[in-house]
Amino acid sequence: MNRDFILKGTFCDCGEDRALRIRAGFGVCEGGVCRGIFADIPEKYAGLPMRDCTGMLILPGLVDLHVHASQYGFRGAGLDRQLLDWLNNYTFPEEARYADVGYASEAYVIFAGDLRRSATTRAAIFATIHTDGTLALMDLLEKTGLETRVGKLNMDRNSPDYYREASAEASISETARFIEEAKGRFTRTQPIITPRFIPTASDELMRGLGALKRRYGVGAQSHLSENGDEIRWVAELCPWVKHYGDAYDQPGLLGGDTIMAHCIHSGDDEVALLKERGVFVAHCPRSNINVMSGLAPIRKYIELGLHVGIGSDVAGGDTLSLFEEMAEVVRASKMRWQYVDAQYKPLTVADALYLATRGGGAYFGRVGCFDEGYEFDAIVMDDSAIKSGMTLADEARVERLIYQSGRCVLRAKFCAGREIDLA
Amino acid sequence: MNRDFILKGTFCDCGEDRALRIRAGFGVCEGGVCRGIFADIPEKYAGLPMRDCTGMLILPGLVDLHVHASQYGFRGAGLDRQLLDWLNNYTFPEEARYADVGYASEAYVIFAGDLRRSATTRAAIFATIHTDGTLALMDLLEKTGLETRVGKLNMDRNSPDYYREASAEASISETARFIEEAKGRFTRTQPIITPRFIPTASDELMRGLGALKRRYGVGAQSHLSENGDEIRWVAELCPWVKHYGDAYDQPGLLGGDTIMAHCIHSGDDEVALLKERGVFVAHCPRSNINVMSGLAPIRKYIELGLHVGIGSDVAGGDTLSLFEEMAEVVRASKMRWQYVDAQYKPLTVADALYLATRGGGAYFGRVGCFDEGYEFDAIVMDDSAIKSGMTLADEARVERLIYQSGRCVLRAKFCAGREIDLA
Repeated sequence: MNRDFILKGTFCDCGEDRALRIRAGFGVCEGGVCRGIFADIPEKYAGLPMRDCTGMLILPGLVDLHVHASQYGFRGAGLDRQLLDWLNNYTFPEEARYADVGYASEAYVIFAGDLRRSATTRAAIFATIHTDGTLALMDLLEKTGLETRVGKLNMDRNSPDYYREASAEASISETARFIEEAKGRFTRTQPIITPRFIPTASDELMRGLGALKRRYGVGAQSHLSENGDEIRWVAELCPWVKHYGDAYDQPGLLGGDTIMAHCIHSGDDEVALLKERGVFVAHCPRSNINVMSGLAPIRKYIELGLHVGIGSDVAGGDTLSLFEEMAEVVRASKMRWQYVDAQYKPLTVADALYLATRGGGAYFGRVGCFDEGYEFDAIVMDDSAIKSGMTLADEARVERLIYQSGRCVLRAKFCAGREIDLA
Repeated sequence: MNRDFILKGTFCDCGEDRALRIRAGFGVCEGGVCRGIFADIPEKYAGLPMRDCTGMLILPGLVDLHVHASQYGFRGAGLDRQLLDWLNNYTFPEEARYADVGYASEAYVIFAGDLRRSATTRAAIFATIHTDGTLALMDLLEKTGLETRVGKLNMDRNSPDYYREASAEASISETARFIEEAKGRFTRTQPIITPRFIPTASDELMRGLGALKRRYGVGAQSHLSENGDEIRWVAELCPWVKHYGDAYDQPGLLGGDTIMAHCIHSGDDEVALLKERGVFVAHCPRSNINVMSGLAPIRKYIELGLHVGIGSDVAGGDTLSLFEEMAEVVRASKMRWQYVDAQYKPLTVADALYLATRGGGAYFGRVGCFDEGYEFDAIVMDDSAIKSGMTLADEARVERLIYQSGRCVLRAKFCAGREIDLA
């Protein structure tokens, strides 16, 4: 269809105010960009090929702001374990194996294939500390047609000997090599600076990463204020910082092209800094509950004007499905309202859809809705297998799609107008 | 296979201590009853037909202790609404339509078919106030081969005019007719006395239902201590009771054949009574979170020795899948541990599996595991579509099955040795 085409169906997206908008009609994609949703095909687009998806729900492609590709092999397993036990028994040994590019490639084929066939069109991804394995992942992702940001991890302290870089210097030079190779090789798959988190990145390493970020103009991603022990640890490791977020900010890693996962226990000063820097918060409630980190104050962040998207956070999260994550966003906010802070009302399904589309989409530019000028990311969802004697309004169908996504079928997916192979 | 057969595969069930037991071998079913799991086929069973499910995970059939068949049509929709708005816009109008047996039958065909094809082998089900519609549901359920308890609801006060029985007397006599017709007509599908809850059942009605329970020797089910407003309302309606549970106990509705859904906010006296009477608690965390009722203290109930099972509680719950409910059992307990009461550790996947099998199974007799003498309820789960570069231990596969159930396929299902048609 060559990035110029029309889809006919029921388009469901969110306005800037997060309200659900449902419009049956014709969605026009020209050169990968949305020209709008129209009740009738405008004269000037009359010649474009049209695909009839009448009866289906067409949503913006979903955006996963935080996922660990190298943990995909043990998704859904080991979640009864405490964090350290989980890291030492699953995460670190498995990630260490990705030193072997052959092993990494075989595992990443599974991840990239499942991501391609999912409802996700864009993602920010953690790989491992290994440059070549990470480039192998990027080769695979580039071929999917999805838009991704992928990080080779940086770790030069506080991890097992078998899974740690030799020195800050070695980590920095490998990261420079990673960025240069990736920039030359890919168009849709861009490198992003990725210290795992402050406890495993020395001060020298963080300063070096800040310099690389400025030199190459690339984004950054990491974890922030996920749990209390971690926050206390950072305060011990970096006694000169005002708060955990400051440990990323001092070396220059916080900006409008930065994603910080979790931000569950951020204090007011840290939140103010995230807002000032334009950082994106990746909200990952499924993981946060699975590993007992807590419930992040997302409505508060939204009302304060922070950028917020959602992340599957596999394998702390147990599924790549952002529909399941959206349902968790709503449930987590209900629990938070009931047990933590009744000041902020629970999030709605429309709020969750906003976060999964426009919220995270903004990290990638004009992405996340069907307004004129937005990149044409779309998923065509068939909910006809969900039988009911009732006739549900389209709004209720969208709600049901999110709660009953496993019974729906993704019929087509487009990223910036490119049709993604779902086979 | 005529209820005498052997399955070969990896059997996964829970011991009395709730520990996960994994045994590869041959499971023998004779006359619908499990004769044990054997490493080799014992001589005396050598002639039985054998089905080879090598590589598959064979679990006990799952038990749904609380589900509303008449709310299945709007599962997953409207969950952003407040309770009263949800009742008045979805629940009551839809349930009222089941006065029309034709409408009810069409809707119940969908419910019974989906239940048949699910991993559930036994269920305790709420229908509506309508006797004939409820009998129509039972006709459908009887044909599935599943074991169920089904209640015609009793409601003679505090609901809209269009969905309320004419009087206590009318409700009681209809219930007697319901029990007599059902007892004569079905073998696997038994009637159960089902006042919706105290606020919609007058004292006269409750006394009459107690008398029916004694006369016919049938079980009972209802809702208990689901939320604070409800509990206060019951205290106003029945000022003479010691607590909400007492309002069921005084007319004689609490016993070892009674299921009470939720029990989130039960006080010590109520809990002691539930234990004394041998009542089964149906834990429905997905619903409890969706409608913001709260997080029930399930580990406490288990340690106190109460009978506990789990319920999907469609349509407060958004899915019939008890695998998804099991994952929610674990997550809800983690949040409760973190935010409500750190005295009781989170439940594990093994605990959740225990509740979904032996816990609820005990309501139906010797049901819920592969010990000798238990009824042979089994589900054969194929997890081969979950690709991973890692080789997971069987215990991790069981965990993953629960978190990633939507990616697994149910290949066969048996209830008391009867193979259930999954087409």
